[in-house]
Amino acid sequence: MSITSMIKTHPNPTTDLNVEHLAEAIDAAAACATICAACADACLAEDSVAELRDCIRTDLDCADVCATTASVLSRRTGSNLGVVKELLTACRTACASCADECESHASMHEHCKICAEACRRCEKACADLLGAIG
Amino acid sequence: MSITSMIKTHPNPTTDLNVEHLAEAIDAAAACATICAACADACLAEDSVAELRDCIRTDLDCADVCATTASVLSRRTGSNLGVVKELLTACRTACASCADECESHASMHEHCKICAEACRRCEKACADLLGAIG
Amino acid sequence: MSITSMIKTHPNPTTDLNVEHLAEAIDAAAACATICAACADACLAEDSVAELRDCIRTDLDCADVCATTASVLSRRTGSNLGVVKELLTACRTACASCADECESHASMHEHCKICAEACRRCEKACADLLGAIG
Amino acid sequence: MSITSMIKTHPNPTTDLNVEHLAEAIDAAAACATICAACADACLAEDSVAELRDCIRTDLDCADVCATTASVLSRRTGSNLGVVKELLTACRTACASCADECESHASMHEHCKICAEACRRCEKACADLLGAIG
Repeated sequence: MSITSMIKTHPNPTTDLNVEHLAEAIDAAAACATICAACADACLAEDSVAELRDCIRTDLDCADVCATTASVLSRRTGSNLGVVKELLTACRTACASCADECESHASMHEHCKICAEACRRCEKACADLLGAIG
Repeated sequence: MSITSMIKTHPNPTTDLNVEHLAEAIDAAAACATICAACADACLAEDSVAELRDCIRTDLDCADVCATTASVLSRRTGSNLGVVKELLTACRTACASCADECESHASMHEHCKICAEACRRCEKACADLLGAIG
Repeated sequence: MSITSMIKTHPNPTTDLNVEHLAEAIDAAAACATICAACADACLAEDSVAELRDCIRTDLDCADVCATTASVLSRRTGSNLGVVKELLTACRTACASCADECESHASMHEHCKICAEACRRCEKACADLLGAIG
Repeated sequence: MSITSMIKTHPNPTTDLNVEHLAEAIDAAAACATICAACADACLAEDSVAELRDCIRTDLDCADVCATTASVLSRRTGSNLGVVKELLTACRTACASCADECESHASMHEHCKICAEACRRCEKACADLLGAIG
């Protein structure tokens, strides 16, 4: 993906962060932000909107946290690794929380099924990058 | 792409917006936001940072406008079409401006070459969606 | 306000943009972004959530566009004035649209009344800054 | 401030979060996001831009994390308290990191002095809210 090319053409070496894991985390977080924003709006349009309030909120929280995570990771602030780790931790939790919520009614709403998959991918990408940072 | 599935599983029909053009605009804007954020940081790391100030600024402006465009389009607020059109217009201009700037030193910085391509793709996607809206 | 101090201590003179109008637009847009995000969540919590769908959407659109406008204006990209003008135009429309929507049920929901005021303030600030740019 | 009115007019009681601390955290984070974006641009305009790279990066990271924190807190997702706590932790660290960096050259750049103050205020607001959550 093109984000990998961006990382490889950056003047600074990515000593603190594994390129493959970093690129996957950026890509997964950016994709998850968009999918969650779309899922929140789809839930809002359902007849059962009153029962989907928690889902809309976890969607919106997850969208915000994922967008910021993608942006901060794109800056690869090696000197700011404390922030990166705590933000990845928050992003992993936001994705897990949103995936749990969406999965609980994935059988009824196809958009929640797709959203849960995007969240699980991002949750794993955050966990993998955290593991690689150590 | 999965954003197409999200649009198709939304309870409301997308009467005002062409699905294919909408999905491409969301995807192009989300990708452009991340690439521009990465390009700004790569420019910042160059020895010639003092000459790249305008590029960093257009990168950051473009990243912000693209991220918001992806988010607003994901909501497909049919009843808010005036905002959608003006935002697409601003996004098209931000992408054109950033592409012009990045292309002017694409031969020296590979990250600017990649970024210019992402901007041109998003510029076209915004123009196509605007054309489809009429 | 402190944003005025930030503008005045910036190394570049703000030749293209009136300081007072610029500071008010940044402050109004940043405030409106937060208020709209809060109003969307308050609407979501109302018993009549199903009737407030359009309000939640215009709130969320307005929050996104205002946040980006505050951020782009904070960079005062004098060389990127085309983007600034189109973004201010989109922000003025997003605020007007959200204010219209919120005002229509301001008598029933105090949070919509407060939100409409924040939107009208930002709408005016965008219009004033656009007028000053010419 | 008006964000306090928004919290008080929300249909749900804020049982999990102290209203005063919550309002201060939202307000401090929103203000810090704007100030940090402005400081990054002012640093970029300095003759000594090459020595201010780390400051620009911590400014941009802090701006992103603060904007998302303001937005997530505005939703007061009581059921999503795990995310709130981890995000507040990341925000506190981002603000402390940016304040440290800005303070190190506050005597030379007035915009960094103002930015450091905004970061310290937000760092404290995050810590206070975390303390109140327990």
